[in-house]
Amino acid sequence: MRENKNNDYEKNSVFGIRAIIEAIESGKTIDKLFIQKGLHNDLFAELWKLVRLRRINYKHVPIEKINRLTRKNHQGVFAFISPIDLHNIEDIIPQIYEQGKTPLILILDGITDVRNFGAIARTAECAGVDTILIPEQSAAAINADAVKTSAGALHKIPICRTWNLKMSLQFLKDSGLQLISCTEKTTKSLYEPDFTHPTAIIMGSEEHGVSPEYLKMSDCKAKIPMSGKISSLNVSVASAIIVYEAIRQRG
Amino acid sequence: MRENKNNDYEKNSVFGIRAIIEAIESGKTIDKLFIQKGLHNDLFAELWKLVRLRRINYKHVPIEKINRLTRKNHQGVFAFISPIDLHNIEDIIPQIYEQGKTPLILILDGITDVRNFGAIARTAECAGVDTILIPEQSAAAINADAVKTSAGALHKIPICRTWNLKMSLQFLKDSGLQLISCTEKTTKSLYEPDFTHPTAIIMGSEEHGVSPEYLKMSDCKAKIPMSGKISSLNVSVASAIIVYEAIRQRG
Repeated sequence: MRENKNNDYEKNSVFGIRAIIEAIESGKTIDKLFIQKGLHNDLFAELWKLVRLRRINYKHVPIEKINRLTRKNHQGVFAFISPIDLHNIEDIIPQIYEQGKTPLILILDGITDVRNFGAIARTAECAGVDTILIPEQSAAAINADAVKTSAGALHKIPICRTWNLKMSLQFLKDSGLQLISCTEKTTKSLYEPDFTHPTAIIMGSEEHGVSPEYLKMSDCKAKIPMSGKISSLNVSVASAIIVYEAIRQRG
Repeated sequence: MRENKNNDYEKNSVFGIRAIIEAIESGKTIDKLFIQKGLHNDLFAELWKLVRLRRINYKHVPIEKINRLTRKNHQGVFAFISPIDLHNIEDIIPQIYEQGKTPLILILDGITDVRNFGAIARTAECAGVDTILIPEQSAAAINADAVKTSAGALHKIPICRTWNLKMSLQFLKDSGLQLISCTEKTTKSLYEPDFTHPTAIIMGSEEHGVSPEYLKMSDCKAKIPMSGKISSLNVSVASAIIVYEAIRQRG
């Protein structure tokens, strides 16, 4: 078990300052970079410049956290490599319009479960969703498990990642997309909105739902009707139901 | 890991002839009974009579299979206990009509994955599906994992099990339900059938789809539109999409 885990880490991770610099310069996409708190030296300064320049997703952590990830000489830095390329929503939306399509995109707010992320990507790819937008923080790790659960869909559908989801939502509104939040905090049913317009659907986590600030920015809130006793759909199932309502309306 | 598994077995299983007889007589539902090939003795004859009388789901297996399940003295028999009660479709359909409802039921043909079964039960319960019908053979185990994945839904929605799915399908047709198979082997889209009639939806496995003999019995075949490259929806997601189309039509 532990053996496998280490092998898995080795394939999807890199540590040591020089090794991470080389990974970045060779074009690898860093899913997340852990930096030991208080780390300062000349070599690290070089990495730090790259991190800022390329806007790499980093987090300062206690050295013990990195020690748990590897027993080898990590020099205070450890990075997970993403098995897929990540895109900018600002590049992707114009491309969708240029292809003569009416954008249908999915935004995942606070969905941190790797399997749910993979399952949503699988459905989205099958339905023909144009892209999935996720934030840098409070998102699922993009790793081999996610790719596997997606049945390979993560290699087919472009995934966009943003530093600032609020600004990206504003960008989408400015680009002519309506924001539709899937939430229980409304009386409006899923079947009321007109999905034939350019649309971005926001899904929240099963625990917290869509964040209040994004609900406020939404043009419309839509609720999946439930009549059972448990009233709790899995988020990947809920995503499928709302995405396929859009597909139905678009004929 | 192994320790946990054993504990899990102990909660959900019973072995030894007398112990299994007592479990059956005390009203416990047997999910599956393994019987050592060639087993014959007076005590077993008593159990065998009960198995036939109560139509318990059994399978003859080599003794090695039972030895792998327990090292204790199993006397050639090992049973998994279902954590939920199972029903007969012949009892449930009249009850649905008596409640003044238009039946909407889900039939799982060859869906053996425990997580998919649990996930489908969760969605079905939320959507207000009346019951799920599964066959004795080629079905997922009904165990603690299934209940967990269902978020408890398996305790809320009645599950029917049948020895002969073909006969049960005929019973449903005779009871006024239309059979709609979810399959790629049709040009008809999911959005064409009229789900406001009494309806039984048949879902097949991801590998084999709905069995040809059940496709033949179906009043209608319906396909979920797909436009991506992988064209492979998870079966629990596909179930959600078709069930919620029925919910939409029923308003």
